[in-house]
Amino acid sequence: MPSISLKGKAMPASPIRKLVPFSEEAKKRGVKVYHLNIGQPDIETPENVLRKIRNIDLKVIEYSHSAGTITYRKKLVEYYRKYNIDVSPEEMIVTTGGSEAILFAMNSCLDAGDEIIIPEPFYANYNGFSITSGVVVKPINSSIEDGFALPPMKAFEEAITSRTKGIMICNPNNPTGYLYSKEELELLKEIVRKHDLFLFADEVYREFTYDGKIHHSVMNLKGIEQNVVLLDSVSKRYSLCGARIGVLISRNRDVVSTALKFAQARLSPPTFGQIASEEAINTPDSYFRDVLAEYYKRRNVVVGSINRMEGCFCPTPGGAFYAVARLPIDNSDKFCQWLLDSFNCNGQTVMLAPATGFYSTPGRGLDEVRISYVLNVNDLKAAMNCLSEALKVYPGRQKSAVGSRQSNN
Amino acid sequence: MPSISLKGKAMPASPIRKLVPFSEEAKKRGVKVYHLNIGQPDIETPENVLRKIRNIDLKVIEYSHSAGTITYRKKLVEYYRKYNIDVSPEEMIVTTGGSEAILFAMNSCLDAGDEIIIPEPFYANYNGFSITSGVVVKPINSSIEDGFALPPMKAFEEAITSRTKGIMICNPNNPTGYLYSKEELELLKEIVRKHDLFLFADEVYREFTYDGKIHHSVMNLKGIEQNVVLLDSVSKRYSLCGARIGVLISRNRDVVSTALKFAQARLSPPTFGQIASEEAINTPDSYFRDVLAEYYKRRNVVVGSINRMEGCFCPTPGGAFYAVARLPIDNSDKFCQWLLDSFNCNGQTVMLAPATGFYSTPGRGLDEVRISYVLNVNDLKAAMNCLSEALKVYPGRQKSAVGSRQSNN
Repeated sequence: MPSISLKGKAMPASPIRKLVPFSEEAKKRGVKVYHLNIGQPDIETPENVLRKIRNIDLKVIEYSHSAGTITYRKKLVEYYRKYNIDVSPEEMIVTTGGSEAILFAMNSCLDAGDEIIIPEPFYANYNGFSITSGVVVKPINSSIEDGFALPPMKAFEEAITSRTKGIMICNPNNPTGYLYSKEELELLKEIVRKHDLFLFADEVYREFTYDGKIHHSVMNLKGIEQNVVLLDSVSKRYSLCGARIGVLISRNRDVVSTALKFAQARLSPPTFGQIASEEAINTPDSYFRDVLAEYYKRRNVVVGSINRMEGCFCPTPGGAFYAVARLPIDNSDKFCQWLLDSFNCNGQTVMLAPATGFYSTPGRGLDEVRISYVLNVNDLKAAMNCLSEALKVYPGRQKSAVGSRQSNN
Repeated sequence: MPSISLKGKAMPASPIRKLVPFSEEAKKRGVKVYHLNIGQPDIETPENVLRKIRNIDLKVIEYSHSAGTITYRKKLVEYYRKYNIDVSPEEMIVTTGGSEAILFAMNSCLDAGDEIIIPEPFYANYNGFSITSGVVVKPINSSIEDGFALPPMKAFEEAITSRTKGIMICNPNNPTGYLYSKEELELLKEIVRKHDLFLFADEVYREFTYDGKIHHSVMNLKGIEQNVVLLDSVSKRYSLCGARIGVLISRNRDVVSTALKFAQARLSPPTFGQIASEEAINTPDSYFRDVLAEYYKRRNVVVGSINRMEGCFCPTPGGAFYAVARLPIDNSDKFCQWLLDSFNCNGQTVMLAPATGFYSTPGRGLDEVRISYVLNVNDLKAAMNCLSEALKVYPGRQKSAVGSRQSNN
């Protein structure tokens, strides 16, 4: 029997999905599980989008252009204009989800062994895509004490080697919810310009900002237009995760023409998803106002609840719908599994994502979890209650160390 | 400005799509272009599938399971049972088109530098996927004189090195339309077993066979169950190219569990496409009878017409909807471009795919073109007339060499 590849062996299992068998077992035992482990929003897809799909009158479901239909790319120009981002259809490759945009960016810009610097914790699947494309991730540390702000310039400088070809950020951030300030982006610009690096920016949560904060796009950083590659997706924006539509955008025509060759090899992005995504741009602003108001309430429930729990700390995220919390626990993988296989509070428990999967430095994230606030406020309150009760009885509960770290904040 | 990757530079532009700018120019000049260059069928998607999409009543378009929805995978079990292929949902990873199935197979089974043997000419995008995953394609020659039959065992043996990990076939074949016999598959089995190689089989044209011939699947080769990886797609079967749904199937659980990790990184295959594909399995047999009868007529028009043209030769394909023809020309890239930019016959011309893009050995395919018979019989006859007239006046027309080669048949 031939053996699988070393690359395949090195691929990480999804930290978000690897506890699924334990949650399935818990459910079989009759335990109600609150899923705060996944980024699947419960928010309804806009009605105009669903109506559009129901009214499809095509006779043949054909391939589209490998770069995406021209009508969708033109519509995207309109969408970005609303955010003062000025791009043309020729600067876009429509992709199969943000995932494929990341893969195309890595494959187009980096060779095997080339390095990419990413502040950690970072979106876990960046690990999978870097292993797939042979790229080496060089993590630099963003810390919970600073609310996961951008690491200082010195940290980037120290991580740069002759193989460094790019920096990747996610803004607002998954898993931390951190929203980078204009000043932080300007700092990134300086580093990128000085070392002539690519700047890959995953801005799929652009709309999700709170407390009056504004999202600043890397597309508007002056002077590094040829370095910037934007990675985007409709998944969270319009609750269209299953549509699998994203986009890679760059003003660097070499990047776009190279990405197009990878796009041609896979023929085209999904046709139904493009139709849905094109219509989604017509979604009224009121939809987002309602969605944001809802997430704002949810965020406050989660962050407020956790910070009231003894020995716990959760910085207040400025965007997205995730938070990373530090808990008084020995090991987040063990704790998250224990929540499912050994704990319940009146027949209920909560499923969280261990933060370890969002770090690439071994040993980091052991006392942190990622919480996706994708349930309604009542369910979230019940879930937070489960978490609070669980922490009181968890056998691996820690005391002094965590308390002292938390008191720094 | 940072430079793109060497991998990106090495990626081939699609041989099927690279002439598109010339066809667009021709159309601007008012020339009618018959597209025989692409694998996009004109056949209508089954009505039950379109109805299913129009009746979608989901409220949230969610991610599915990374391996595909369980309902679709169970339905696929039914589908394969009709072809006496016995598989379970746990042996399947639903992919974003057959393209992603190929990529997952390569990434799961081969590391950078590992070799895969493929009889050429072969589906051009295998080149793109091998470059993407760092895999080295070792072509062995199947020749037009033999109608593109499987190369002899000796050719495989000579190509095998210590880095060889697999053999890839496409059956029925794109671009040649060749349908492998049971004896040829048994020969492949012997080679695979002797050298303990993976056997990757792209069987997306399974239904498209002619002249009473039967398709034999690699899934039914006894004794190499752990070596076989099936790559499949709904694109051509149900005229659902834009749905972007394929599947990787193997009885080798290591391959499936490894492919699942790549699948988890990209979250899920398209939801709309899975709904359409699940319904497609209910398509009545009469649909395929009509489709096959239509393609059979088309094949006969193309093959008959070409073999009547002086100095031309086209073996009769047993399956799929492609044929490779040898023409009395100096260079198929030049000829196919000339058809678009310098020729017309009463305001009409024909777009073909140069066969060079389907070979990885330089210099091969220079006097061959791939013809996709995806237009109705009347249009095909008009296209064949254009081709015939074009060959009479093409400045790069060759005489003796091609004539002598053809006379061998």
